[in-house]
Amino acid sequence: MAAPIALIQGASRGLGFEFCRHILKNKTLATVVATCRNPDGAADLRTLAGQHPGRVTVFRLDVNQENDIRGAAEMVKEKFGQLDLIVNCSAMLHPSGKGETSLREVSAQGIISTLTTNTVGPLVMAKYFSPLLLKGSGGFGQQPAEKAKQHSGIIVNITAKVGSIGDNGLGGWYSYRISKAALNMATRNLSIELGRSRPKVVCVSLHPGTVNTDLSRPYHRNVPKDKLFSTEHSVNCLMNIIDTLNMEKTGKAYSWDGTELPW
Amino acid sequence: MAAPIALIQGASRGLGFEFCRHILKNKTLATVVATCRNPDGAADLRTLAGQHPGRVTVFRLDVNQENDIRGAAEMVKEKFGQLDLIVNCSAMLHPSGKGETSLREVSAQGIISTLTTNTVGPLVMAKYFSPLLLKGSGGFGQQPAEKAKQHSGIIVNITAKVGSIGDNGLGGWYSYRISKAALNMATRNLSIELGRSRPKVVCVSLHPGTVNTDLSRPYHRNVPKDKLFSTEHSVNCLMNIIDTLNMEKTGKAYSWDGTELPW
Repeated sequence: MAAPIALIQGASRGLGFEFCRHILKNKTLATVVATCRNPDGAADLRTLAGQHPGRVTVFRLDVNQENDIRGAAEMVKEKFGQLDLIVNCSAMLHPSGKGETSLREVSAQGIISTLTTNTVGPLVMAKYFSPLLLKGSGGFGQQPAEKAKQHSGIIVNITAKVGSIGDNGLGGWYSYRISKAALNMATRNLSIELGRSRPKVVCVSLHPGTVNTDLSRPYHRNVPKDKLFSTEHSVNCLMNIIDTLNMEKTGKAYSWDGTELPW
Repeated sequence: MAAPIALIQGASRGLGFEFCRHILKNKTLATVVATCRNPDGAADLRTLAGQHPGRVTVFRLDVNQENDIRGAAEMVKEKFGQLDLIVNCSAMLHPSGKGETSLREVSAQGIISTLTTNTVGPLVMAKYFSPLLLKGSGGFGQQPAEKAKQHSGIIVNITAKVGSIGDNGLGGWYSYRISKAALNMATRNLSIELGRSRPKVVCVSLHPGTVNTDLSRPYHRNVPKDKLFSTEHSVNCLMNIIDTLNMEKTGKAYSWDGTELPW
């Protein structure tokens, strides 16, 4: 079986960086394709790549630019020919860095920017990279005992519990909530189209918990210490879920502890 | 009690036009504010207005332009000072007129355009018009016997059953499905913020069925005749729901027959 290849989108910091670190450390055969907007400024990623010679390839990719995504997919195709896992990590709360606390703070431009990064980006990633996932060796997740390669690849979209419409009891954060609900529909739709092919691609939304990253930084003082996860802890939990993914689990949203989230 | 005032957004044709016609015919005291992108080209609307002298005001409003929405809200405020009902009707399947049948047909620009009209538009409408709904006289829906004006106004966002993530078994139509799931989150969030005020604004998503309009025209031959509703039938059903709306029903999505839709 070929060495598994994971593409981490939004890999320069936060959860994306930690996914790279975790996979390099714990999946000793795996290769990582790390994408970010500005590789030259991604010092941590360069250091990490230096620590794992030959195992990390960094590509520039701005998830807001369809041409970037198409171009990166062509480069990955040329270099690797296939992929086993994509994790879409890039996200913003709102261009201002803070979620709207009321309608007064809503603006068309703010929500369109948030949707473009958080929802359109992952969907367009799937458009260009799913052909490579369909050629994957199924190196991530769990294949059923009787079928060596039921799924060839996995798409993970990082969602958020506040993107659950049914779970929404507090309101606010219009742009972020709407973008993540929309992303969950994208996941669901992808799971249907990519579940019809043979082999298939597993598609899920995963909620990482409230994680100590730049995105959540303005709100850290409101979060009880034991509820504010390190990126290490969160990615540990999420990789435990990814390690058990199969076609029975596709098309759903899961929280960091493995419980299913309502839509 | 003041004469009830309804604003129909996207009133030049399809469901929006029929909402105007229905209200003028059946709510004989009501006034209608009809908005559309191009009043000069809206011949049917002008004819209708001529048939009901003094009861229809037409304002130009492109739901894709935040400045248009702000300007129209200022004009409505100046002329009426309040509103009892808003129905957001404008929507597109996709800029091409056809929903995507596979990922290959997805484009960033196509989905962003669809989200802008179908999701961002209704949300920005709520931003500028909710102050007028909070001053409404509660002339639509059903007030509880013991509270003369529990809700002052109602926001209806026209959604679609294919926007239900949980109900999605077929896939495809990426832009439209995602935009309507996102709209449902907007409805839910609005219901929370506008349910905290006193008086309150009821916010719901309504699914009109498959209706004989321009939006669905490319698909009519695939729809059994008894499932393809006339705009008259659909709006009749939806107004029956609107007539019974109250704060107990806020924050949910309903189908034309009154059943609740899953998120």
